[in-house]
Amino acid sequence: MRNMLSRLAQELEPYVPGEQPVDKVYVKLNTNENPYPPSDRVLAAIHGAVDRLRLYPDPENTELKEVLATYWNSRLSYGSPKLETENFFVGNGSDEVLGFAFPAFFTDREVAFADITYSFYPVYAKLFHCTYREIPLDEDFQIPVEEFVKLAKEETPPAGILLANPNAPTGRGLSKEDVEKIIRANEESVVLVDEAYIDFGGESVVDLVREYDNLLVVQTLSKSRSLAGLRVGYAVGSETLIDGLNRVKNSFNSYTVDRLAMAGAVAAICDESHFQRTRHLIMETRSRVTEKLEEMGFNVVESEANFIFVTHKSHPAKDLFQGLREKGVLVRYFNKPRIDNYLRITIGTDGEMDILLHALEELLA
Amino acid sequence: MRNMLSRLAQELEPYVPGEQPVDKVYVKLNTNENPYPPSDRVLAAIHGAVDRLRLYPDPENTELKEVLATYWNSRLSYGSPKLETENFFVGNGSDEVLGFAFPAFFTDREVAFADITYSFYPVYAKLFHCTYREIPLDEDFQIPVEEFVKLAKEETPPAGILLANPNAPTGRGLSKEDVEKIIRANEESVVLVDEAYIDFGGESVVDLVREYDNLLVVQTLSKSRSLAGLRVGYAVGSETLIDGLNRVKNSFNSYTVDRLAMAGAVAAICDESHFQRTRHLIMETRSRVTEKLEEMGFNVVESEANFIFVTHKSHPAKDLFQGLREKGVLVRYFNKPRIDNYLRITIGTDGEMDILLHALEELLA
Repeated sequence: MRNMLSRLAQELEPYVPGEQPVDKVYVKLNTNENPYPPSDRVLAAIHGAVDRLRLYPDPENTELKEVLATYWNSRLSYGSPKLETENFFVGNGSDEVLGFAFPAFFTDREVAFADITYSFYPVYAKLFHCTYREIPLDEDFQIPVEEFVKLAKEETPPAGILLANPNAPTGRGLSKEDVEKIIRANEESVVLVDEAYIDFGGESVVDLVREYDNLLVVQTLSKSRSLAGLRVGYAVGSETLIDGLNRVKNSFNSYTVDRLAMAGAVAAICDESHFQRTRHLIMETRSRVTEKLEEMGFNVVESEANFIFVTHKSHPAKDLFQGLREKGVLVRYFNKPRIDNYLRITIGTDGEMDILLHALEELLA
Repeated sequence: MRNMLSRLAQELEPYVPGEQPVDKVYVKLNTNENPYPPSDRVLAAIHGAVDRLRLYPDPENTELKEVLATYWNSRLSYGSPKLETENFFVGNGSDEVLGFAFPAFFTDREVAFADITYSFYPVYAKLFHCTYREIPLDEDFQIPVEEFVKLAKEETPPAGILLANPNAPTGRGLSKEDVEKIIRANEESVVLVDEAYIDFGGESVVDLVREYDNLLVVQTLSKSRSLAGLRVGYAVGSETLIDGLNRVKNSFNSYTVDRLAMAGAVAAICDESHFQRTRHLIMETRSRVTEKLEEMGFNVVESEANFIFVTHKSHPAKDLFQGLREKGVLVRYFNKPRIDNYLRITIGTDGEMDILLHALEELLA
């Protein structure tokens, strides 16, 4: 009897997200969720949208695109060309946006990304029939900018370059100048900059979109807008790249963002003061916790994200991961080459981080 | 300069959903939405779920799977093997579930479906590198059951058979006996029965899932549960087939159903009386409108769906479509071989259908 599953499906190695356990209440520092609730305006907007659930949502997500264009245009320097709604694409979380980017640009082609980065990239590559090459980060987990610049000089440069900035799971950021250098050099390649964590200290390149047709920036509302449970992400790029995403999306699912998600996302983007307050709280907590951990003998990779990547001089990460779990604190551990002695710890509230610090003190004692 | 879009993306011919115009208020009978609002319990459940939006949803959608298992098990005949949560898969609308089914089972293989059916099937086939063949419906738009049964006798039968039951855009249903005949004969093929419209008069084959490992049934909450705006669909099948869907989903997007959609869907499945009341209202309206239209010289294909497929003996469908649009009534017209003289009309409230009938009377006068 033949296998009911396609060969492709048999060979897939799916991504494994951080656990969402229900066995007991944990201090949950394992999936980079925001410890603060979303803006009250989000809740009000959702309440206002429930009475039209019988109708399909707008398949174009026009309202959110308009709000995003206004938001980003207000941040452009004077005289820069404005972004239009045609420069935006909205999806069911930034993971879906990334998932559409692979068939839109990379099927039957090659992409390049760092050896240590978001581990979903090679999974997409497999699903959508792309080859990929991994470019090693340097010893300090820095992106080797010159290695990425050099790709353009090859006889057949990769069709795509994926940069997570700040990078995951390291948290390390790349300066805007360095990102631009890679975009400028690789004009024949789509450079996808995944800015899921950009609002915690990094510098976005959204304002370069009108300058570089090959640049696609992907952002999410899951982290800095506290809406992981609502599933909204978006891309900003040239009309050509956005058209590619639309062609794939409309060949897969006409309506990927539901009415409540759309209403909530619009409200979240419009509440600037909530956004500023909560992201600054997280960055302050990050500084404080980093200092404490260093005092305890941890090496903490410099982070521009809402998580930190840490290793201890004498205690194996795997043991600490298990020990923390037993004490009711969940962090993320990746059993992978080069990073198997590190923990990725989400920045929670000050109270949550105190519990973490106390638990670590006990484990190190 | 090379094209930024992959050859695949360049060659896609995306599905075009029914329009969602915002220029004025229409009587909207073009996208098979339910004219009645969802259960009040849905709204209450959504209100109860908004306070946890900062956290990712359950990637396994366990709560809805449990509710669906209970729902379907209560409908099985005595002694039938029970469905487990492992027999269910939940997605962002049934379109997403269908979209995952293609790479899970059909990539680099062939699927067969009717020449007149849901026009998204060939679009998925193109996106996920499947070949397909179309089997012509007979003169009365009936599924030629024997033609589908015969596929099993071929040297290389298609890997998949897709049956929309009731079929779209015709509304014609297939008896449970006939569907089972096709499933039983084609034991080497995945038989995907798309039951998006089953609750308006058809007979589901969900209860055959434990009997046939090759059967995958897909349903949606968009139509009979009045939740088109919330985007929830699901599949029921053997553990092998559900595993295939999970492998693809987890290679694409870990969390495809948001917290509010999950809460609303659970509540909708649990409100049996609202479900029964609204679907019966729609079926009664369908009978009444069918009779009226026949009196006006229309041929109305016998429908088991929440829409009817009609043609007039003397007035071209395209003209009627335009005329209705000008009068503020939207219906669906497909400019495709065999069906380009038909209109697909969603069953709305009695009041909406009276407006339609009145507008048609004026156009036919």
